[in-house]
Amino acid sequence: GKNVLIVYAHQEPKSLNGSLKRVAVEELSKQGCSVTVSDLYAMQFEPRATRNDIVGFLHNSSEFNYGVEAWEAYKRGSLSKDLIEEQKKVQEADLLIFQFPLYWFSMPAIMKGWMDRVLVQGFAHEFPNCYDSGLLKNKLALFSFTTGGSEEMYAKGGISGDIRYLLWPMQHGIMHFCGVKVLAPHICFAPEYVSEEKRKEMLIAWAQRLKTLWKEEPINCSPDWYFK
Amino acid sequence: GKNVLIVYAHQEPKSLNGSLKRVAVEELSKQGCSVTVSDLYAMQFEPRATRNDIVGFLHNSSEFNYGVEAWEAYKRGSLSKDLIEEQKKVQEADLLIFQFPLYWFSMPAIMKGWMDRVLVQGFAHEFPNCYDSGLLKNKLALFSFTTGGSEEMYAKGGISGDIRYLLWPMQHGIMHFCGVKVLAPHICFAPEYVSEEKRKEMLIAWAQRLKTLWKEEPINCSPDWYFK
Repeated sequence: GKNVLIVYAHQEPKSLNGSLKRVAVEELSKQGCSVTVSDLYAMQFEPRATRNDIVGFLHNSSEFNYGVEAWEAYKRGSLSKDLIEEQKKVQEADLLIFQFPLYWFSMPAIMKGWMDRVLVQGFAHEFPNCYDSGLLKNKLALFSFTTGGSEEMYAKGGISGDIRYLLWPMQHGIMHFCGVKVLAPHICFAPEYVSEEKRKEMLIAWAQRLKTLWKEEPINCSPDWYFK
Repeated sequence: GKNVLIVYAHQEPKSLNGSLKRVAVEELSKQGCSVTVSDLYAMQFEPRATRNDIVGFLHNSSEFNYGVEAWEAYKRGSLSKDLIEEQKKVQEADLLIFQFPLYWFSMPAIMKGWMDRVLVQGFAHEFPNCYDSGLLKNKLALFSFTTGGSEEMYAKGGISGDIRYLLWPMQHGIMHFCGVKVLAPHICFAPEYVSEEKRKEMLIAWAQRLKTLWKEEPINCSPDWYFK
């Protein structure tokens, strides 16, 4: 069985995001996968990148450089406990699913903080080991999210532009940079403005997709996919 | 004199970001502007969008919807005190400057949390008042940031793609959505990998630009500017 980590950011278990997360846990478990969930709001996950992430002394205490300090702390095993635990989950995962409501063309701050703090140099990348040779290669990632805006607003030529435009920083800038291959995103458009029945169909479609997920090919994560 | 709000996200006053912020405060004050700084790390600004942002009762306590609750709380004046203070600063500002190190093709989580929590519906936008008719129209914004990667990496055809690709969610998806007009970004590429003298030149160039900032025309914030 494969290992799956679901990084989940919604405050309300009864939300569609909560249901999408539960559907994924159920369907993947049924397949024999081992599924772990990082429920960021429930964990009160810390999004701020600060000196508190480094236990004990600093590499250079006269001028604090977060990237350098986190890298050095990673190497000597002195990152804070919450980060070490998240990194262990990532290390063991074959697939990372990010489940969230789109906030301002991106992920909620609590999930951005997970990216900022967990994917430290030395662990996820270490120049020149980035992009195709990133340290998390042989893993897959999938961004599954809900939007406020409609599919028409997020069309090419729509007022909010092609939804793929806003996937670039998340899929290419973060996941591809770490060597992770990216599966096509799973997007539920404007669930707040559709009927209860339509929302149920969204859950069924997600369960359906998950049944054959392991046969999917990653996208070709290059500017062409996003902007052509 | 104009009012300027600098939203600043760096942990270390001695950093280049810290110096860029100081240069802006000095130069704009010299011009007779009234400058306010929101120093997010120093304020220990809360990035997480939670129930704590609403004082007192909820609109719908059986199923928590952050967007709806923040909107309703805004209307009845019961958002948390830190949000009301930030909104007052935004309301009074003619220009918003965002000063930060680029983290993962975007802003640090602490600044994303400022966007998520401060720019609530009713205050910054209220459908159909979005984009050109957003509620913060007649204001300007400028993203000023430092990168880890070099200018070559962030060129069209470079491994990280045109730097403009990653500006879309921040400039269009957030600022333009709220009706704010966007000035050209100010980017210091890879300051950690250049000489002390080069870094000084970066500070001088920023001060120089600020001298004629009020004569600048906003960018044409449409897909062409970003992706053509």
